Amino acid sequence: MGSLENQSFGNGFLHPTETNGKVITCKAAVAWGPGLPLVVEEICVEPPHEMEVRIKILFTSICHTDLSAWKGENEAQRVYPRILGHEASGVVESVGEGVEDLKEGDHVIPIFNGECKECIYCKSPKTNNMCDKYRVKPLKSVMENDGKTRFFSKKEGKPIYHFLNTSTFSEYTVVDSACVVKIDPQACLKSTTLLSCCLSTGLGAVWNTANVEAGSSIAVFGLGAVGLAVVEGARTRGVSKIIGVDINPEKFLKGKAMGMTDSIDPRTLKMPVHEKIREISGGGVDYSFECAGNLDVLREAFLSTHDGWGMTVVLGIHPTPKLLPLHPMELFDGRSITGSVFGGFKGKSQLPHIVQKIMSGGIKVDGFITHELPFSKINDAFQLLIDGKSLRCLLHL
Amino acid sequence: MGSLENQSFGNGFLHPTETNGKVITCKAAVAWGPGLPLVVEEICVEPPHEMEVRIKILFTSICHTDLSAWKGENEAQRVYPRILGHEASGVVESVGEGVEDLKEGDHVIPIFNGECKECIYCKSPKTNNMCDKYRVKPLKSVMENDGKTRFFSKKEGKPIYHFLNTSTFSEYTVVDSACVVKIDPQACLKSTTLLSCCLSTGLGAVWNTANVEAGSSIAVFGLGAVGLAVVEGARTRGVSKIIGVDINPEKFLKGKAMGMTDSIDPRTLKMPVHEKIREISGGGVDYSFECAGNLDVLREAFLSTHDGWGMTVVLGIHPTPKLLPLHPMELFDGRSITGSVFGGFKGKSQLPHIVQKIMSGGIKVDGFITHELPFSKINDAFQLLIDGKSLRCLLHL
Repeated sequence: MGSLENQSFGNGFLHPTETNGKVITCKAAVAWGPGLPLVVEEICVEPPHEMEVRIKILFTSICHTDLSAWKGENEAQRVYPRILGHEASGVVESVGEGVEDLKEGDHVIPIFNGECKECIYCKSPKTNNMCDKYRVKPLKSVMENDGKTRFFSKKEGKPIYHFLNTSTFSEYTVVDSACVVKIDPQACLKSTTLLSCCLSTGLGAVWNTANVEAGSSIAVFGLGAVGLAVVEGARTRGVSKIIGVDINPEKFLKGKAMGMTDSIDPRTLKMPVHEKIREISGGGVDYSFECAGNLDVLREAFLSTHDGWGMTVVLGIHPTPKLLPLHPMELFDGRSITGSVFGGFKGKSQLPHIVQKIMSGGIKVDGFITHELPFSKINDAFQLLIDGKSLRCLLHL
Repeated sequence: MGSLENQSFGNGFLHPTETNGKVITCKAAVAWGPGLPLVVEEICVEPPHEMEVRIKILFTSICHTDLSAWKGENEAQRVYPRILGHEASGVVESVGEGVEDLKEGDHVIPIFNGECKECIYCKSPKTNNMCDKYRVKPLKSVMENDGKTRFFSKKEGKPIYHFLNTSTFSEYTVVDSACVVKIDPQACLKSTTLLSCCLSTGLGAVWNTANVEAGSSIAVFGLGAVGLAVVEGARTRGVSKIIGVDINPEKFLKGKAMGMTDSIDPRTLKMPVHEKIREISGGGVDYSFECAGNLDVLREAFLSTHDGWGMTVVLGIHPTPKLLPLHPMELFDGRSITGSVFGGFKGKSQLPHIVQKIMSGGIKVDGFITHELPFSKINDAFQLLIDGKSLRCLLHL
């Protein structure tokens, strides 16, 4: 297997009877140790168990969370061999027992932050993405059902571990159905790949977590794919001032094309960034978004908002065990700080609507995918991200 | 002066013509140095300048913020001689030029957190208490108008400094009209004294800052006057579970009389408080209120809320320069933390309605005033608070 002849992905190209219920042998990029080049090799993928879905991945991209896990930055993350990857789109190959909302041939995106629709979190109107069973668990490496893997090395039959409920660096992957979003089959699967992580994270931080108003002002710290998705979210809400902050001024061109009104390169300033932002925004922006994963940046983001009502949304991933660089009394100035995971979206329920907005042109996704490479060049794609040369490099499987 | 014969305070007892426009000599409790006993002595009080009000204080009580300033815990607070005090009620003796919403004889409460009704903060629906000119400024010790004091020592004519926009430990005080709330003349001035600080702070934290719902659960850390006002605010909102935490179990009786459903003394527990609270509240309370001014307590309060939606409101005053004992990534669990100053009330606009609720019995204030003493015994009242024996000791002037 792994060589289904038709590499286009219109409806009906899959022949379920060929693979349904059988182990599929296909290619995956396997991480064998911290920082070691990924090895694109043949693996075996079990059929989906109860409430699981086997997906043929067509496109996948790389996020900084993949980089971090690949490097094994956190010791507890060092689980190998493992299949990383969590931004992708594809087509359902087969479904396990009990899966009713998905079927062979459905166009889907896997999400690391699932939605079971039954737990107190999924049912609560006060939280959007803490699903009891399928919330993001960076240390989880096996399936929820039985604590085992669905991947095995072809050569030795040894288990290969899962990552972030998704493991998309593989021609086929097995995912809990709670982590699979069915989308319009007419949607461009290249673009929807971004909804698995960066685009949802940025748009949702603006729409759901901060809930910014038309005419308000924002500052975005860090203009990677997530930061630019924040810019796009702000543009669609009619934000009147969008200030981008980055130490790489090359990012400003892209940001301005997306709607950024002002740019700040901290290295060329003679004052703290927050002072400059207060100066050009009438005392501070209404909202700031920290997309850099750096505590000094986080403090600047916090101080750059207007006292009385400013809100800072933390999107960056921060290393342990550092503390929030804020004094408790600073909360008394009326500034608040909050975190946002996966943009506060209930993925299965809400992302299909976002797909419609992309299709209608209401959300612009041009510019996020800066490179495209065949899956076999995945290590080159990692290097592009490490070097800050790509926003997203789309891998074709 | 200072000896207006009629010590009752019905309408019309004041004879404005006697003192209007003149310097009043009266008694005040003056702080001469950090931790030194207050000296009840004769002082001179100037007439109010433009947009200022001179108030005859009838009742005042003592809050921990007075204690802190008296001790001079923060070096920058060490401004002496000074008249402390910020919880009080009284009657307007005279008003300065331009004051239109207050007149002689009005029953009033001074507030440390003013409302000018004209600045961007007072006009914003997104913030309630950051008035540009009259917000709480712990280091301010003079009047806004001219940077001078309205108090002078009778003996040497030396200036005596102001405190928290109020300085209520005096038979007469001068306050900016933005910091004076006119209330129903039929209201009990003993009870309304508490609205200057502790009662507003606690009720407003529940109603405005957290905006708790009927049927929700809360935990209150520290059962002083502010903590018990939180309990009362929660009772009036129909909160179904009110857990009180204090290391002084004597507080539990009073708390339970006010509506507390559960009590926890951390010293008798064999597990962290937050684990116990999660155990008895189905995974954590919906809201927690930190009224202790202690960072370890703050962390327990944060962790005691339910993940996904729990909110912690910080009310306690925390010493510098400690940082928030939270890791940035802990914000990703859906718990939030925020501060609340003066309960988020716009004092002049909103407190008169709270007075009506007290008068109608909708808010119960019995139990907050545990002691009453003549003004001359102010040092004894300080000691009662220091020893944890009083919630509020009301001083009669």
